[in-house]
Amino acid sequence: MIKNRFEHPLNEKTRIYLRVESLLRQLQFSSSFADNHQYQLFLKSLFDLLEIFDQIQLKSELAKDLEKQRQTYRAWLDVEDVDQNMLGKILDDLNEVHRNLMAAERFGQSLKEDRFLSAIRQRFGLPGGACCFDLPALHYWLHLPLETRIKDASQWLDTLKPLINALNLWLKLTRETGRFVPKIGRTGFFQSDAEDASILRLSIPMEYGVYPMISGHKNRFAIKFISFETGQAFPYDVEFELAICS
Amino acid sequence: MIKNRFEHPLNEKTRIYLRVESLLRQLQFSSSFADNHQYQLFLKSLFDLLEIFDQIQLKSELAKDLEKQRQTYRAWLDVEDVDQNMLGKILDDLNEVHRNLMAAERFGQSLKEDRFLSAIRQRFGLPGGACCFDLPALHYWLHLPLETRIKDASQWLDTLKPLINALNLWLKLTRETGRFVPKIGRTGFFQSDAEDASILRLSIPMEYGVYPMISGHKNRFAIKFISFETGQAFPYDVEFELAICS
Repeated sequence: MIKNRFEHPLNEKTRIYLRVESLLRQLQFSSSFADNHQYQLFLKSLFDLLEIFDQIQLKSELAKDLEKQRQTYRAWLDVEDVDQNMLGKILDDLNEVHRNLMAAERFGQSLKEDRFLSAIRQRFGLPGGACCFDLPALHYWLHLPLETRIKDASQWLDTLKPLINALNLWLKLTRETGRFVPKIGRTGFFQSDAEDASILRLSIPMEYGVYPMISGHKNRFAIKFISFETGQAFPYDVEFELAICS
Repeated sequence: MIKNRFEHPLNEKTRIYLRVESLLRQLQFSSSFADNHQYQLFLKSLFDLLEIFDQIQLKSELAKDLEKQRQTYRAWLDVEDVDQNMLGKILDDLNEVHRNLMAAERFGQSLKEDRFLSAIRQRFGLPGGACCFDLPALHYWLHLPLETRIKDASQWLDTLKPLINALNLWLKLTRETGRFVPKIGRTGFFQSDAEDASILRLSIPMEYGVYPMISGHKNRFAIKFISFETGQAFPYDVEFELAICS
């Protein structure tokens, strides 16, 4: 049975973390320039990230959240029945990414100062704006040997490593707090309480032909299942699995 | 010797034609969904096109321009030394794409009315806005079998066929009016008159490490060569090839 995984953030900050995670994945995927058009995804993801960095103080928010996780795990030190080896490993990881995060530049600083990137950033967003006459410098760069372009991309990505490692660890530890449990959405609807949760994870069998519309916040949420074919509320029971991660 | 081809439109309408051509190529390339991220390029190109269709009456502009070409070629009927077979073939092509263009819907009409596409169009433009929680319907669609998605894409593309054929023919005939001629940009600069030209085409050896900054209009233009490394004007002579297409 094919299942469709969905994730939903229960607060604005987590929403941004998940968007940034998705953009970083696209960036890493497209940085091999495996076909002639992947530079589009690469640059779009990069410029989207820079826009998000302009909007929120991602670095300090993430540092605070990692610190919270560190305190939670520290409280388990020397507690009986807790695997102290694994706990020590998690705390080491948290210490390292936190240290590297604090030592890092403001996210995107050197990318914003890059002459080539800043010269093409503005026009790139126009509809069809990546044409050679709009961005002759980009067009020249695209004709450079593949290894040169991959090296450039890898240098740009390197500046984001502290963010990538910190965000991946925070999301990994957060996701691990939730366990998938079978649930039933009666007549296509499910609601429940949550205690200071960050992310809902759903696993829904494809055979229902539905996707979830989720509303809520950290303490309460509701899931409405929508039929993909009709765009209308699905009127039947849906058996799915749900993990609440905090 | 590797050469870098650049094209530059000499009026606003041709600028849009070239942008649309580039978007249509991206759309066709990415419609095979050969990797898990190509849907991004596909949808971005599609929504960029819809934005351009909203801005200008592309269909009537293109019909007028094809009609002008038709008149030009008709004037050569029965002229001595003109290959009448080839001319007949061009006129047949022009008649056919013009007829299909006039019979077509307003460009993008059925795409704008498509429930799935219109539901995802708005949020897709947000930075990182293609996440599953922003666009659960898109996320569901991405889990459909590849052949279903390819079929959808091909139906959406079919509605653009009259545009694709008309634009490709107009650009092909326009580009064929120009012939590459060797030129020298003295101390990195070249200017010339043109007679009612639409497109400049340049072929520049990569070894100079330069790209062109072009300004001008249908009757006069100037090319400044810029060093990619420094971003400054290139101070030496550049031997390049130029075709002026009208």
